[in-house]
Formats: sequence, structure tokens, C-alpha cells
Amino acid sequence: MKNFTYHNPTRIVFGKGTTDKLEKEIKDKGNNILLVYGGGSIKKNGLYDRVIKQLVGKNVFELSGVEPNPRLTTAHQGINIVKEQKIDFILAVGGGSVIDCAKAISIGAKYDGDVWDFYTAKAYPTSAVPLGAILTLAATGTEMNGNSVITNLETKQKNGLAGVFVMHPAFSILDPVNTYTVPPNQIANGCADTLSHLYECYFSYPDNTPIQDGLAETIMKTVFDQAFVALKNPEDYDARANLMWCGTLALNDIIPLGKEGDWGCHAIEHVLSAHYDIAHGAGLAIVTPPYMKYLCQFNPKKYKQYAVNVLGIDPTGKTDYEAGLEGIQKTKELLKKMGAPVSLAEVGIGPEKLELMVSEIVTNGNLGNYAKIGSKELLGILKEAL
Amino acid sequence: MKNFTYHNPTRIVFGKGTTDKLEKEIKDKGNNILLVYGGGSIKKNGLYDRVIKQLVGKNVFELSGVEPNPRLTTAHQGINIVKEQKIDFILAVGGGSVIDCAKAISIGAKYDGDVWDFYTAKAYPTSAVPLGAILTLAATGTEMNGNSVITNLETKQKNGLAGVFVMHPAFSILDPVNTYTVPPNQIANGCADTLSHLYECYFSYPDNTPIQDGLAETIMKTVFDQAFVALKNPEDYDARANLMWCGTLALNDIIPLGKEGDWGCHAIEHVLSAHYDIAHGAGLAIVTPPYMKYLCQFNPKKYKQYAVNVLGIDPTGKTDYEAGLEGIQKTKELLKKMGAPVSLAEVGIGPEKLELMVSEIVTNGNLGNYAKIGSKELLGILKEAL
Repeated sequence: MKNFTYHNPTRIVFGKGTTDKLEKEIKDKGNNILLVYGGGSIKKNGLYDRVIKQLVGKNVFELSGVEPNPRLTTAHQGINIVKEQKIDFILAVGGGSVIDCAKAISIGAKYDGDVWDFYTAKAYPTSAVPLGAILTLAATGTEMNGNSVITNLETKQKNGLAGVFVMHPAFSILDPVNTYTVPPNQIANGCADTLSHLYECYFSYPDNTPIQDGLAETIMKTVFDQAFVALKNPEDYDARANLMWCGTLALNDIIPLGKEGDWGCHAIEHVLSAHYDIAHGAGLAIVTPPYMKYLCQFNPKKYKQYAVNVLGIDPTGKTDYEAGLEGIQKTKELLKKMGAPVSLAEVGIGPEKLELMVSEIVTNGNLGNYAKIGSKELLGILKEAL
Repeated sequence: MKNFTYHNPTRIVFGKGTTDKLEKEIKDKGNNILLVYGGGSIKKNGLYDRVIKQLVGKNVFELSGVEPNPRLTTAHQGINIVKEQKIDFILAVGGGSVIDCAKAISIGAKYDGDVWDFYTAKAYPTSAVPLGAILTLAATGTEMNGNSVITNLETKQKNGLAGVFVMHPAFSILDPVNTYTVPPNQIANGCADTLSHLYECYFSYPDNTPIQDGLAETIMKTVFDQAFVALKNPEDYDARANLMWCGTLALNDIIPLGKEGDWGCHAIEHVLSAHYDIAHGAGLAIVTPPYMKYLCQFNPKKYKQYAVNVLGIDPTGKTDYEAGLEGIQKTKELLKKMGAPVSLAEVGIGPEKLELMVSEIVTNGNLGNYAKIGSKELLGILKEAL
């Protein structure tokens, strides 16, 4: 096990009806609130009204229309509001994109330069306007970590910040009932995102980490199992609750402790969606199986462990490599069955920009842990994903 | 899954050599430090000198001799020092008892009455002198929670506080190398303690909690596996690291989330050791198998799940109850093989005080989750443990 530091100050309020705990959680957070949300689904399903009712007596300013891949320009708008209106507290109501955007606003508002500096490693955030969240989508884990991903359309870059202590939400309210209206394709993409966070740690050295591996396998199994329950019956509380808690645990920094990590699929996906604006989870579902398939040859034992422990593959009479490949194939089938795209064609990406994207990915990311992945190998992986 | 709140502000610094991070962690914690430790093993193994070297420039006061079941009188001594010397920060160096005692001091020093009031529910702690820890024994999990157990020899009571937010250590340094000198019987007792924390949640309703169950099973399997590695080779770093992280995760409040919990074995053990001053882990190792055996009949399916998933029992041709009992028997054998006592006789407890203790246990604790355990059933369990 590698050395590590773990410090997660976010308070999680989880369960049916916890949406109504907002008033109590936000009471002592100051008077000027910036409410951040997305395209308006919270107005349709009643969540907006329920939130506003609990903010009576506060001065509420709003930033709506945060995009699925939140834009730098939107964060700039929010930063201006926070500075001009002397906002005390930012409340994000939505999925990962809304919360990520709120985080960018929280650090940008305490900085004299452009917040994009943080996302291009020109500066490091050391203070932030405090924020809280009401989560409406099980997927990214941003509700309990110090991560944020922002897209700069001008430079065609989708860059992330990870593990920034001041960016942890002070609280996050996780009411599984708020995910009942999440449509099937978003359930599938959310599950692909959760799974990817687990894979990116699980498939990396060191391998003598039974605790981390077992925790990851448990969450993977639960996702595969509960996704189909939620798809069949969108109002199955236990399934929604399990998926929600899986999404949080998969990226609240417990799983990666002591592991090197890979994060290659995330590096690839960020460039794909910077160019094509596809959903993050969709990009991950497409890229993950061919990425695994390439790396399987370098640590077949681990891929076999995954196939057996998570997917119940019978390894009898198979080499580790064969069992591993069978697990990867089954992963692709399950993602497809959930409704996630498993080829670039399905999201309208052709071969035109592959070389350009490969060059950007290799510059940005450090790909592959079991073996280094260079431009040639990456092009092969992406061609297989076409 | 039941509703829950999770908020754990402790910063964990984990790994080989992290003992030398103390200076950095404690730098901004004030000038007057109370160093709390136990019977002096840290002086023999060099840890004391290593700690003192990093406190140069601070005013260090000491409270040593904290007992394995820390006494209220010792906490009183510490509270007096903190009040008289205007202590800014308490540093506990030791196992669970030392840290628990430091926690009692931390809350007692901010209270005008007797700290025992908190342990008898006459008052609730809302402020504390901040504390940090260097852990030397994998067992109780106190290094990352708001729990503390104190023994009042005068009233023969061993009472606990759980989930007190202000009692969380600000930081805990977990250097597995500091556990190399832990002797075999303490390894065994520590593992029994870790396992018990998992059992007390795992064997309780609701049962539709695949995440919590899987996490608990992973940690149980790792404990059973790595304990024998550490017993065979006390300086096996990976085994010590895995056991240490298991101990922390088993009671850092992640596992119980969404479960009702039972905590019956802890209630029994607290009375046993209040009367006989036995090691906490030893008491748990003795009590757990007969406690499980009684409850197995009320939820045989769950005990079978444990037997199969954790201990690899083959359930073919067996009823759930039979497979469950086989798992319980194997648990007892494994604890014995580790070197933990599995009968009251082994720790010098005879039948003399059983009725008295049963009456105290039933008054104090709420025993049994799958079925209520009253005086009659409890007496049967303890007689079986004789």
C-alpha cells in the first residue's frame, strides 16, 4: 500500500425527505445566497419550489442554465454575481456539472485573476466562498470531494482540478427521491461514470491492496445490479439509494488511497467532449472497454480477478487473459444493455479528428499504469472504439 | 437503507515514515501541548524520543500511565493539567485506550462539572480542546471517530460515548511500522475488536444494504487473512498496513450508515471488563461466537451469507441455519488460532457474578437486533461462554 493522506470535511445528509433539511443546514451560512442550477428540470419536478421555500429570509440570487459540460463562461457569470452581490454561500442544486460549476465559482470569486488559471495549473486555489449542494444525479461523486471539471469552448479544453481541499462542499444533501425523474440514458451514463472512477484506481499498481480492491468490487457489483432495478422501476427507492451512495463512495477519495491510479479513460474522455460536447459518462462508456482490452495483456491476473469477483465469470479452463477478456466483453454488453453508448459512432464521432485528439490527449494526460500508453497505442484504442 | 448523516473531519496521515510528519501537523496547533501515553512501551521502542524531537520549541506537559481500560481518575488528572497549564492541544500517542482517555480530557477540560456526566448522559459535550493522535495499535478505530470509552472503578462502570463531533481528532498519524512491536496477544485482541465493530452493524436490519455488507465482508476477510501474516512475521509491512487500515475503516462510521446496528457484544463486554478489567478485544472474542449462535436462528440467511462470503464455507446440502452455525464455529476457531481467548475461564471469569452482570448489561444496553435479547437469553449466552 502506498502512503496517503485522507481528509474529507464534507457533511453528508442522506435519505428520503432530507431535501427538507436544507433550511437547517444553510441557516448559519450567511444571508446572501447564490443558487446555481441547470436547464430547469428542477422547476418541472418541484424541487426548485421546495428549495426556495427553505431560503425565505435570505437574499437569493440565481445562476441558471449551467450546461452538462459546464462552461468557463458560465462560471465567469457566477463569479461576477458573487463579487458584486457579496455572496456568503453558494448552493448548487443539480448533478455533477452544476456542482462543478459552483465549485469553480467558489474559488474564482476569491481570486483576482481568471479562474481558468487554476484549471491550467498557473495558480492553486487556497480559499473559496463556501458552498453546499443538493444532488439530483448519481454519477460524479463531486458532492463529496474537492474535484471540478470545466470546459473552455474557446480553447477547446475540458480541464479538471482534483483534491482541492477548499472546494469540498460544506454539506451535500443526498435525497434519492430527487433522482426518480432521472431518465434512462442518464442513469446509464451516471453508472458508467461511477464505474469508471472505480476502474481507474482498481486497475493500477500496487495490487496487494485487498481492502481497496474489495471495496471497489462491492461498489461495482452493486452498480451493475441496481442499475437494472432502477431502469425497470424508476421509483424503486432502495435501488436509487444504493446507486446514489455508490456514486459518492466511488469518488470520495476512499477507493484510491494507497493506489497509484491511472485516470487514462478520463483524460481521453475530456478531450472527446471538449471537441464534441458529449456527456461525460457516455464518453467513458465508449472508451473504457477498448482501453481495458489493450491493458489486459500486461496484468491478466487482475482483469481475471475483476471478471470473476465482479461479473461472476467462470474461469475454469481459461487462461487469466482469456477470463479477463471475457470480463471486458461482458462489461461492454452490460453498459450497452443499460443504454449507454459503446461506440464513437453512436455519439456522432467519426475518424476525422482522431489524430488531433490523440495528440492533445497524450500531451494532457499520463495514460496507462500497467503499461505506458503512447500515441500509437491510443490511436489503436480509439479506432477500436469507432 | 435507513437515512443517515455522515461527517468525519479527521485528517488521516497514513504510511511508512509518517511519524515524522508530526512536526508539520502540529505546527499551527498552539504552544502548550499535553502529551498523553500509556505504560511506557513508546519509551522502549524509541517512539517517545522521535515525538519529543518534533515538539522542540513547544511547552510539553505529560500524562503517562494511561491504563488499558482508561480510568476516570486518569482523565481527571489530565483535565487538571489542561486547565492549569492552559493547554492548547492534546497529543495522544498510543492505542485506543490512550486516545479515548485523551478525548475524555479534551471534553472535560471545557466543562465545569465532572466529565463523567458526559458518560452517564447527564450532559452532552459541545466543545473540546483540540487533539491529535499517533496510533500504535490496530483495533478500536477511535483514531477516526467521535467515540470514547472510560472506566469508573468506583462505580464499576465502563461507559462509552459515540459520535460526538467535537471529539474527532484533528489529525491521526497511522504509521504501520509503529505496530511492529505489538505482541501476538494484542494483535489477536485488536483483530477481535475490529471484527466486532463490523459484526455489530452487519448482523442487523435492514438487510437490503449490499454496499455496507460488501464493505464489511471485505474488511472481515482482510482481517482474517492478514492477521496470520502479521503473527507469523511481525515486520510484514503490508500485513500491518492492511490491519491498521481495517481497524480504522471498521469504525470510522462508514460501515454502520443506513443500518440499525446491534452493539450487544460491546454492551456485554463493557460490563465484563468493568468487573474484571480484561482487555476489550479479549472480552469481545469470548462473547461474540455464542452471541451469534443464539441469533443465528432468527436470520439464518444472513449468517449463511457471512459463512459463505467471508469464510468460504461450502453451503451445498446445508440449510441456511446449518451453514450459518458452521461459519460461527469457524469464527471461534480462527479467533482461537490467532491467540484470542474464546472462553470466560481463559480470562479468569467464573460463574460467580454472572447474574449480577446480566442485570447490569440488560439495564445498560439494548441487546439484539434480529431478536430482542432479555436476561434469560443473555444468561444462556454467558453460560455457554464459560
